[in-house]
Amino acid sequence: MRDFSSDHRWLSINTATVRRSRGVDLPLTEIIEACARRGIRAISPWRDQVAAAGLDTIAGRLKANGLALSGYCRGGMFPVTDEAGRRAARDDNRRAVDEACELGAPCLVLVVGALPGALAGKAAHKDMALARAQVRDGIADLLDYARSMGMPLAIEPLHPMYAADRACINTLEQALDLCDELNPQPRGADAGRAALGVAVDVYHVWWDPKLKAQIERAGARRLLAFHVCDWLTPTTDLLNDRGMMGDGVIDIPRIRGWVEAQGFDGYSEVEIFSARNWWQRDHRQVLDTCIERHRVAV
Amino acid sequence: MRDFSSDHRWLSINTATVRRSRGVDLPLTEIIEACARRGIRAISPWRDQVAAAGLDTIAGRLKANGLALSGYCRGGMFPVTDEAGRRAARDDNRRAVDEACELGAPCLVLVVGALPGALAGKAAHKDMALARAQVRDGIADLLDYARSMGMPLAIEPLHPMYAADRACINTLEQALDLCDELNPQPRGADAGRAALGVAVDVYHVWWDPKLKAQIERAGARRLLAFHVCDWLTPTTDLLNDRGMMGDGVIDIPRIRGWVEAQGFDGYSEVEIFSARNWWQRDHRQVLDTCIERHRVAV
Repeated sequence: MRDFSSDHRWLSINTATVRRSRGVDLPLTEIIEACARRGIRAISPWRDQVAAAGLDTIAGRLKANGLALSGYCRGGMFPVTDEAGRRAARDDNRRAVDEACELGAPCLVLVVGALPGALAGKAAHKDMALARAQVRDGIADLLDYARSMGMPLAIEPLHPMYAADRACINTLEQALDLCDELNPQPRGADAGRAALGVAVDVYHVWWDPKLKAQIERAGARRLLAFHVCDWLTPTTDLLNDRGMMGDGVIDIPRIRGWVEAQGFDGYSEVEIFSARNWWQRDHRQVLDTCIERHRVAV
Repeated sequence: MRDFSSDHRWLSINTATVRRSRGVDLPLTEIIEACARRGIRAISPWRDQVAAAGLDTIAGRLKANGLALSGYCRGGMFPVTDEAGRRAARDDNRRAVDEACELGAPCLVLVVGALPGALAGKAAHKDMALARAQVRDGIADLLDYARSMGMPLAIEPLHPMYAADRACINTLEQALDLCDELNPQPRGADAGRAALGVAVDVYHVWWDPKLKAQIERAGARRLLAFHVCDWLTPTTDLLNDRGMMGDGVIDIPRIRGWVEAQGFDGYSEVEIFSARNWWQRDHRQVLDTCIERHRVAV
């Protein structure tokens, strides 16, 4: 297991962590500069932030600042109610792959979607099996395109509390079952990264009694991204009350140890949605805290 | 699958559903009378409500009103930090078994506990494996006593969002693994109820992609209780924002169909924690709504 205590070379910042500074939206260009100034070597930006600044602008700023990506957020949201919706989702996901290529991302993260309409409070139906079948078909279709572009897809299993409205893939086992179905590993496959793998976010999977076994099953080829934050007790909001590493109950070093025992050698990406706390602070303080906690609590 | 549309003979009320009426605590004696007046045949009371009214009083009122129990809430909370805590938990759980016997409950429901102190916001440690080992040992010890008293124990797997502070058994598979370890089924076992089984609450398990398979694995012997409510979108509180059946996204009839296909023929118990909605209403209206929804949405 790598020693993180003396530097932050393996720290990446998911830009949602500092998308607001003192409660105000912060442009991605400023996030990039603040990260570069602190010797942070990688970020994982969100599509809406990239679109607001312009894809070319962001590609240029990343290059000028020597910043890598640890992932690109995000594709997915496959379940729909009609053919027009399916085509729109397909086209949008292909654009996400194109953008990920343009920015040099190592993978496109997929939040796969769930019951159509549920995110707006009006689920079109209650058929999780149908939603899961649409996710399967959507990934299968996108995988063809992504492979042609050389862009790995990372399925991010989300915590079961998001099963209704954000993602109906809710355990690492379920995600890996899908990987094995759609992208079977050839015998004697090399040690490279799979075209379809997973993003392991400790917030979503820490509770899972099968976590260690499924990380071992994934192996280095399927482990495309590793995200950290913490689970607070109490948690006051289902979406936007994630904690800074060390402030909650997740044994992050233990999980990182399992991931690295498989050969994972990528970035540890900090992704914190925190409406009541960290988004209310100055982003420079948040980044400094991420660096400090990366050394002592990850 | 039983037809619930024409009566409510298989409806049970978990008394937490009406523990407050118009925001004020409601005595269990009044809950019993309000249920009996509506032809509701069973309830599942909580220990604190029974203690407030007196065990003998409640036993008498149940008998006088011809009310059965569908379960008794609850034992568990096994993980502790020291030997004194372990002894206290053991003694308290044995008292819970005694009370369940006194009230004629068909099972004692177990909410097994998680990281000690987390419920108060100060987890003593982050070792889920340790907590799970203590849960295993605690159930093993209690099972000996419960068997001697003829009281089945029903492990209730809680939603993974409660893994830190309420229960570290979070899937039906995990609960059944424990049942099989501590109470293996003899070959040629009869069709009676197991001494150790599960309480299936749709709120906790609806998201699980392995739910149907695990219900089939449980079979009638292990299926000791069936609880219903609904998952709202959005859900505004992790604990106390459960929905009335039909107001959310859970396909309750589908899950009940799976449970009954195994031979489960017990009550469908309504358990709704709802600080912002149902606990603010008059309990008579809540009970009437439970009866109506039991017929059309369960």
